[in-house]
Amino acid sequence: MSLVTIRNIYPICTAPEGIPLVIVKVETSEPGLYGIGCATFTQRWQSVAHTVTDYMKPLLVGKDVSRIEDIWQMSMVSAYWRNGPVLNNAISGVDEALWDIKGKMLNTPVYNLLGGKVREAARVYRHADGKTLEDVGDRVQQFLEEGVQVVRVQHGGYGGNAYADYLDSLKPEGAVEGAYYDPLGYELSVTELFEYMRNRFGMKVGLCHDVHEHLDPIHAVRLAKALEPYRPYFLEDALPPEQVDWFQMVRSQTTVPIAMGELFNNPSEYNKLISNRLIDFIRCHISQIGGITPAKKLSDFCEVFGVKTAWHGPGDTSPVGHAANLHLDVSSSNFGIQEFAGFGQHSLEVFPGCPELRKGYLYPNDKPGLGIDIDEDLAKKFPCSTALPKWTNCRRPDGTINRP
Amino acid sequence: MSLVTIRNIYPICTAPEGIPLVIVKVETSEPGLYGIGCATFTQRWQSVAHTVTDYMKPLLVGKDVSRIEDIWQMSMVSAYWRNGPVLNNAISGVDEALWDIKGKMLNTPVYNLLGGKVREAARVYRHADGKTLEDVGDRVQQFLEEGVQVVRVQHGGYGGNAYADYLDSLKPEGAVEGAYYDPLGYELSVTELFEYMRNRFGMKVGLCHDVHEHLDPIHAVRLAKALEPYRPYFLEDALPPEQVDWFQMVRSQTTVPIAMGELFNNPSEYNKLISNRLIDFIRCHISQIGGITPAKKLSDFCEVFGVKTAWHGPGDTSPVGHAANLHLDVSSSNFGIQEFAGFGQHSLEVFPGCPELRKGYLYPNDKPGLGIDIDEDLAKKFPCSTALPKWTNCRRPDGTINRP
Amino acid sequence: MSLVTIRNIYPICTAPEGIPLVIVKVETSEPGLYGIGCATFTQRWQSVAHTVTDYMKPLLVGKDVSRIEDIWQMSMVSAYWRNGPVLNNAISGVDEALWDIKGKMLNTPVYNLLGGKVREAARVYRHADGKTLEDVGDRVQQFLEEGVQVVRVQHGGYGGNAYADYLDSLKPEGAVEGAYYDPLGYELSVTELFEYMRNRFGMKVGLCHDVHEHLDPIHAVRLAKALEPYRPYFLEDALPPEQVDWFQMVRSQTTVPIAMGELFNNPSEYNKLISNRLIDFIRCHISQIGGITPAKKLSDFCEVFGVKTAWHGPGDTSPVGHAANLHLDVSSSNFGIQEFAGFGQHSLEVFPGCPELRKGYLYPNDKPGLGIDIDEDLAKKFPCSTALPKWTNCRRPDGTINRP
Amino acid sequence: MSLVTIRNIYPICTAPEGIPLVIVKVETSEPGLYGIGCATFTQRWQSVAHTVTDYMKPLLVGKDVSRIEDIWQMSMVSAYWRNGPVLNNAISGVDEALWDIKGKMLNTPVYNLLGGKVREAARVYRHADGKTLEDVGDRVQQFLEEGVQVVRVQHGGYGGNAYADYLDSLKPEGAVEGAYYDPLGYELSVTELFEYMRNRFGMKVGLCHDVHEHLDPIHAVRLAKALEPYRPYFLEDALPPEQVDWFQMVRSQTTVPIAMGELFNNPSEYNKLISNRLIDFIRCHISQIGGITPAKKLSDFCEVFGVKTAWHGPGDTSPVGHAANLHLDVSSSNFGIQEFAGFGQHSLEVFPGCPELRKGYLYPNDKPGLGIDIDEDLAKKFPCSTALPKWTNCRRPDGTINRP
Repeated sequence: MSLVTIRNIYPICTAPEGIPLVIVKVETSEPGLYGIGCATFTQRWQSVAHTVTDYMKPLLVGKDVSRIEDIWQMSMVSAYWRNGPVLNNAISGVDEALWDIKGKMLNTPVYNLLGGKVREAARVYRHADGKTLEDVGDRVQQFLEEGVQVVRVQHGGYGGNAYADYLDSLKPEGAVEGAYYDPLGYELSVTELFEYMRNRFGMKVGLCHDVHEHLDPIHAVRLAKALEPYRPYFLEDALPPEQVDWFQMVRSQTTVPIAMGELFNNPSEYNKLISNRLIDFIRCHISQIGGITPAKKLSDFCEVFGVKTAWHGPGDTSPVGHAANLHLDVSSSNFGIQEFAGFGQHSLEVFPGCPELRKGYLYPNDKPGLGIDIDEDLAKKFPCSTALPKWTNCRRPDGTINRP
Repeated sequence: MSLVTIRNIYPICTAPEGIPLVIVKVETSEPGLYGIGCATFTQRWQSVAHTVTDYMKPLLVGKDVSRIEDIWQMSMVSAYWRNGPVLNNAISGVDEALWDIKGKMLNTPVYNLLGGKVREAARVYRHADGKTLEDVGDRVQQFLEEGVQVVRVQHGGYGGNAYADYLDSLKPEGAVEGAYYDPLGYELSVTELFEYMRNRFGMKVGLCHDVHEHLDPIHAVRLAKALEPYRPYFLEDALPPEQVDWFQMVRSQTTVPIAMGELFNNPSEYNKLISNRLIDFIRCHISQIGGITPAKKLSDFCEVFGVKTAWHGPGDTSPVGHAANLHLDVSSSNFGIQEFAGFGQHSLEVFPGCPELRKGYLYPNDKPGLGIDIDEDLAKKFPCSTALPKWTNCRRPDGTINRP
Repeated sequence: MSLVTIRNIYPICTAPEGIPLVIVKVETSEPGLYGIGCATFTQRWQSVAHTVTDYMKPLLVGKDVSRIEDIWQMSMVSAYWRNGPVLNNAISGVDEALWDIKGKMLNTPVYNLLGGKVREAARVYRHADGKTLEDVGDRVQQFLEEGVQVVRVQHGGYGGNAYADYLDSLKPEGAVEGAYYDPLGYELSVTELFEYMRNRFGMKVGLCHDVHEHLDPIHAVRLAKALEPYRPYFLEDALPPEQVDWFQMVRSQTTVPIAMGELFNNPSEYNKLISNRLIDFIRCHISQIGGITPAKKLSDFCEVFGVKTAWHGPGDTSPVGHAANLHLDVSSSNFGIQEFAGFGQHSLEVFPGCPELRKGYLYPNDKPGLGIDIDEDLAKKFPCSTALPKWTNCRRPDGTINRP
Repeated sequence: MSLVTIRNIYPICTAPEGIPLVIVKVETSEPGLYGIGCATFTQRWQSVAHTVTDYMKPLLVGKDVSRIEDIWQMSMVSAYWRNGPVLNNAISGVDEALWDIKGKMLNTPVYNLLGGKVREAARVYRHADGKTLEDVGDRVQQFLEEGVQVVRVQHGGYGGNAYADYLDSLKPEGAVEGAYYDPLGYELSVTELFEYMRNRFGMKVGLCHDVHEHLDPIHAVRLAKALEPYRPYFLEDALPPEQVDWFQMVRSQTTVPIAMGELFNNPSEYNKLISNRLIDFIRCHISQIGGITPAKKLSDFCEVFGVKTAWHGPGDTSPVGHAANLHLDVSSSNFGIQEFAGFGQHSLEVFPGCPELRKGYLYPNDKPGLGIDIDEDLAKKFPCSTALPKWTNCRRPDGTINRP
C-alpha cells in the first residue's frame, strides 16, 4: 500500500430542490481519486462551508487518507470546543468522504467495509401531509399502493395548522410577526388524525408522527398516552433536546415506541437516553454528529440496549448523506427504518448514483465507496439561497418563542 | 451615578375590597424618589406590618438602593431563622420596592431590567364558581365571551359545597363549630363538574380546578386520574405542602398537568418538586417567597426542567403584587399563565396604574418601575379588619381539622 | 420609551496579543448608540465571524434592542440545531452587546441591571508556570507579593512537560508528528509540585491546578486523591466533557474542590453535574454558552445547589468577555473566584475601559453598559492569524490522540 | 463484485509450545482464497474443534463471505442457547477468518477496514515471575532494558506460591490431591512484592498484577486498597465473574485501576461493569466473546464510558488471535495496553507472519487480511495433548475448590 494523502478539501454548496446542501470533496495525492461526504446543515450552510475551507483543509492536507479514526479524533479535539453543530458537520463531510475514498481505493462499497450486508435494502417511511384528514388519508393510500409499509402522518404541517383559522383569535394585541401555531389545538388534532387513519386503514399499516418539539413536556406525555390505543409505529421528537428526561414519564405510562434525535449533536444528549432505554429509535442527522465513524459506533451502542436506528433523512439530508445512511442501514443488525423524502429530478442529475426506492425499500448500488457522485458544474446551476428559515422561529399564540 | 440610599421604610395596610393588603413603601435620600412593594399576607397582616417597622427599617436605612441582591441576602440571614411566611413577606415588600425604585431611577419599566418583553401581555385564567353546574357553566360562558381562554371551575366554592345538605348528616353529636366540608362528596362533585363542562364547551376550552388541599393524598391521586379524560388545563394544589412527595404517584399514573405552590415559602418545599419534574406549573405567591429577586431566579430554575410559571394572583394578592407578577410574566420565556381575579373599583382608585385586562390578556403599562402607585390617603379609608379568617379552619364531617 | 432597533451587526476580529479575539458590534437606529460583546472562540474565530455576518445580522436587523431574552431564544432556535460552539459564540456576541446597549440607554453599568453589586470587586486567581519547581515557586512568590490570594500552579505547561526529556524514549517507531506528552509522568509531577509549594508557602495560600483533560479518568481520580492532603483551592478540568460521570468517583473518595466547565457548550453537559453536586465551581467560557443571559441563569441555578462560579478568563477571553465576566462576578451572590491572565499593553489600547487589577482584585469601572469600548482602527493593526493551534492536538507517547 | 462463498470450514488443532491451540480455516469458492481465525479454548479444545466441524461448517457452507455481520448473528442464534465459551470460540474462528478473507479480497490489512491506524504499534505488558522477590525483580530489570514499559509481577506463579512451604501445614488430614494454594499468604505476599518493586524501580515503571480470581471478595478489595500506595498500572481479575458486583466496593474505596474480563463470554457479564464505570480495562479473550466483530463493538462501547482495552494475550491465545488483537489495538482510539507473552520458535514457524515485538511495542505487518498464515503440515507435528489442565482445579488449604 503506497501512502495516499489528502491534497485538497473544499465545500460544494448546492440547492437542486431549493434546500441548501453542503457537500465536502476530499481530493487525494492520487490523480483522479477523491471522495465526497455530506456536511449539510441547511439552516447554517454558510457557516459549515467556511469552516471546511478555513479549518478542515489546513488541518488535514497531507494526512494519510486511510487513517479515518485518527483524523476524526484529531478533528474533534482540534477546535478544543467540540460536539456541536457546524463543526460536527464539517468533520462529517470529511469523514464520509474518507470512507468514500477508502471504498474506492479498495474497489468495494462502504457497506462491505462495515461488515457487509445484513439485508438487501432499507425499509423506508414516507411523509404524508394535507389540509384535511381526507387529504392526508389519500396521500397515505397512494404510498400504500406504491408498496410503502410505514407512513408519517401530519395534519396541516409540522406545526399542526389544523386549527390555523382559530389561531389569530388567541393572540394578544400587538403580537410580533412570526410563525405562530397553537399547541393545544395541535395536540387535539393529532389524536383525531390517528383515529381517522385507523378507521380508514386498520391496525396493520405503520403510522408514525413527528411532534417536532411543539408541545410542553406534560402535553407531549399526554399525547403519547392518547395515541397509545392507535398503536403508532413511533412518535418522533416528542420533546426538545433540553427536556429529554421527561421521557421517563412517557416510559412509565405508555408503550408508544419513541423515536428521537434529529436535533442531537452531543453524546451527552443521547448516551443516557439510550442506556436508560428511554427511546426505541435513535434518529440522529448523521452529519450533525460527525459522520459515519461516530454513527457506526452509535448504532452498535444502541444494539447493546435493544434500540434501533432510524437516521434522519428528509429533504435537508443531501443525497450523499442518504447514501451514507443507507450503507449503515444495510450493514447494521439493529437498523429499524429509514426516513425518506424522495429525490427530485434535479437532485438525481446533480448526484449521479442516488439510492433507488422500489416498493417501500431503498436500495444501495454496488459501486465502490458510497456509490454516489456530484456533478460540480451542474451543482453550480442551483446556488443556495441565503434567506433565513422562517419555520424555525415558531411562536405560540401569546407570542412566546417555542423552546418548550 | 451618585449614591442614593434608603431613608425610610414603612408598611401601608389597606383593604379596599375588604381583604387586608400590606404594601411596603421605601423612601430614599433622593427627594420624591420612592418605591412600593407587596408584602401581603392577609391572614397575618399585622405580623408582617410590625416586622417591617421593627426590623426592616432599622436594618436597611442608609443602605444603597441599587444593591438589591445584597439587601435581599442580608435581609434573609439577618433573622437567623429564615424561609418562613412573615419574614419573607416583609423582605418581599422591600425587594419589590427596590426594583420599583431602580426602574424609576433608570426611567424604565421593571420588565425591561429583567431582559425585556418576550410577549405583549400575560394570558390569564379566571375563576368561575356557582351553586349549580349550570351556574358555573354560565359564568364560564361569560368569560369565554370576554375572550378569556382558560377558566378555573369550582362547584360550590373551594370546599366543594355541592353536597352541603348531605354534610350535616355525617357529623357526630356535639360537633364543634367550624367550616365543615365533605371530602368524598367534594371529590365526586369535581368529576361531575368536568363532565358537565366538557359536554357543554367541548375539549378546546381551558379548564382548571383548585383542590385547595382538601383531600387525603390517595384521594387526590384518584381525583387526578378521574379527571384525566377531561384534559384539565391543570389541577391546582392537589396536595398540602407537607405531602408533596405523593405527586410521584400522580406522575406515575396520570398525565394531568399539575400546578402547585401558593402555600410554599421555603426552597426545600419546591426545589426538588421542580427538579424531579413532578409539577408543570409553579404557583408561588411572590411575596411569600421574598419578592421579585427570588421569583426571577425560581422562574429561571423552572425553565431548566420544562416547568412553567403561574404565579398566585387572587384577591389576596395586592395590585402591587399583581404588577410584580406581570413584570415577570411578560419577561420570562417559561411563563405559563397568570391567575387573575380582577380589580374592584376601590382598588383601582387606591392603586393608580393597575394592569389592564383585555380579551383574556393582562397588559402592563410602560411607566417606570412597577408602573403602579398607591394613594395613601385613600388607602386609609379602607382599614384592615383584625377579624380572623374562618375558611382556613376547615373541618371534615367527623370534626377533624383538615390538614390532609 | 421610543423604539430603538438593531441597524447593523458585524464582527471585529483582532489579536492585540497574538491570540485571535472576536468582538461583535451591534449598531442601533439611534445615532451613536451601539454595544459590543465577546464572541471569542480563538480556535475557530473565522467560523464565528462568518456566522455573525451571514446569520445573526439578517436574523436580527430591525428587532427591538430591549428584548434581549426574546432575541436570545429566537437566535437559539433559528438554526434548528443548537447548543454548540460557533453558533453559541455568535449569539453571545449579540447578547452581550445588547446588555451593553441596555446599560447605555439607561445610563447605568450592566451589574446594576443584574441586581446591583454584592461586592466591590472580584477576587482573581493567577497562573504560575515554569520549567522547574523553583521557577514556579518564584512566580507564585511574586504574585503573593502583589496581593494575589490564589494561584494556579502548572509544572512545565498544561501538558505537564516536567518529564519531557524522557518522553521520546516512550514512542514507537514511526510515530506521527504532534504535541506529545506523558500522562503518567505528568500525574506524578503534579503531586511533587504541590508538595513543593506547600513546603515553601504553607497551607494558607490558595493553590489550584488545571489538568486540562490530560488524564485517563481513573488517573484523574487518583490524582485528586493524591492532592487531597495538600488542600488545593480547586482541581480544574480533571475530566473531558464526555466523561464527567466519573466525578461521582472523585466525590466518593475525596474532598478536593472540583472546578469544571470551560469546554461546555450544552446544558446537557452541565445541568446534572451541578444538580448532583458533583462540582464546586462552574467555569464556563461565557461566550461558549451564549452570553450574559444564559450565564446569569446558570449562576442562579448553581446557587440552588451550593455551587459557585469561576468563569473562564484566560488570554482567549477578550477584554470585552472579561468585562462581561466581571459584571456577573460583582452582582452574583454565589460568585467564587475569577480566572485572570492580565491584559497586555496592546489590549489596553485596543479596548479602552478594561477592568483594573489591584491587589488581587479585579474592579469594574462605573461607565454605562459593559464599560468597555473597542478602537476599531487600532484593532485592525492586529490582524488575526489563520494558523491552526497545535496544542489542541495532543498525542500520548504511543501516538494516540488525547480524548481520554 | 462477483459472489464469493464459503466452500469449507475446518479446525486445525496444534500445540507448537505444548499449549493446545485451535485455528479455524475458512476456504472459499475462489481458488486459493481462504482465511484463518483463532478459536482457541485450550482447556476444552476438542469441544470447539468438534463444534466447528459438526455445526459451523454445515451451517455456513455456501454463504456469501462478505456478509460477516449477518453470519455472526446467524451463528449466534443458530444454537438457540448462546453466549457461552465453546460456541463463541467456534463462531470466533469463522469470524476472524472472514475478516482475514475480506482483507485479502480487498488487498488490505484488517486494521485498515476498522478505520485505519491510530498508532503505529501496540504497547505491551510482559509477565515477570520468580520464586524470590529478587528473581522477579531481575526479570523486570531485563524487560525494562528491552524497552518494555509495563510489567506484570507475580511472586511464585499466579497462585502466589511465595508461602508454599507453609501451605502444607494448613491442610486437614486426608486432603485430596490438587493444586493447593494459600489465599491469605498470597494476599500478604503481593503487597510485599509491590513494596519491593517500588523500592527497587521507583514510581515511574508500570507494574501490574493478576489476582486470577484467587481471593474471597472482601480480601480482593482489601488487597486493592493495600496496593493503592504503590500505584499499580492495574490490578487484574481481582474477582471471579460471578462476583463482579463487589467491584462497587473497590471503586468506593480505592483508585487502583481495575482490569477485568478474560473469563467473560456473555454480554451480561461485562456490559454493566463497563457502563457503571467499575473497571478501567476490558480484558476479554477475543475468541471467547465471538471474534473481531463483537470485540470491535465492545471496544467502541468502552470508549463511551472512558474504559480502555487490554485484550487477553497469554500463551493460550494463538498467534492468529494475537494478530486479531493487534489489528484492533492499532485501530481503536481507546486501546490501553496489550498483554503479550512472546512467541516461541515453533510458533514462529507454524504461524508465518507473527506480529513483531520491538522495544516494548508490538507491530502488525502490512500484509492483506490478518497478515498471518498457518503451515498446516508443520502444525500437525505439534499435536495437542488431551491431558486435562490441573491448575484450574485450585484448592484452598482446607480442601475447598476455589471459586471465591
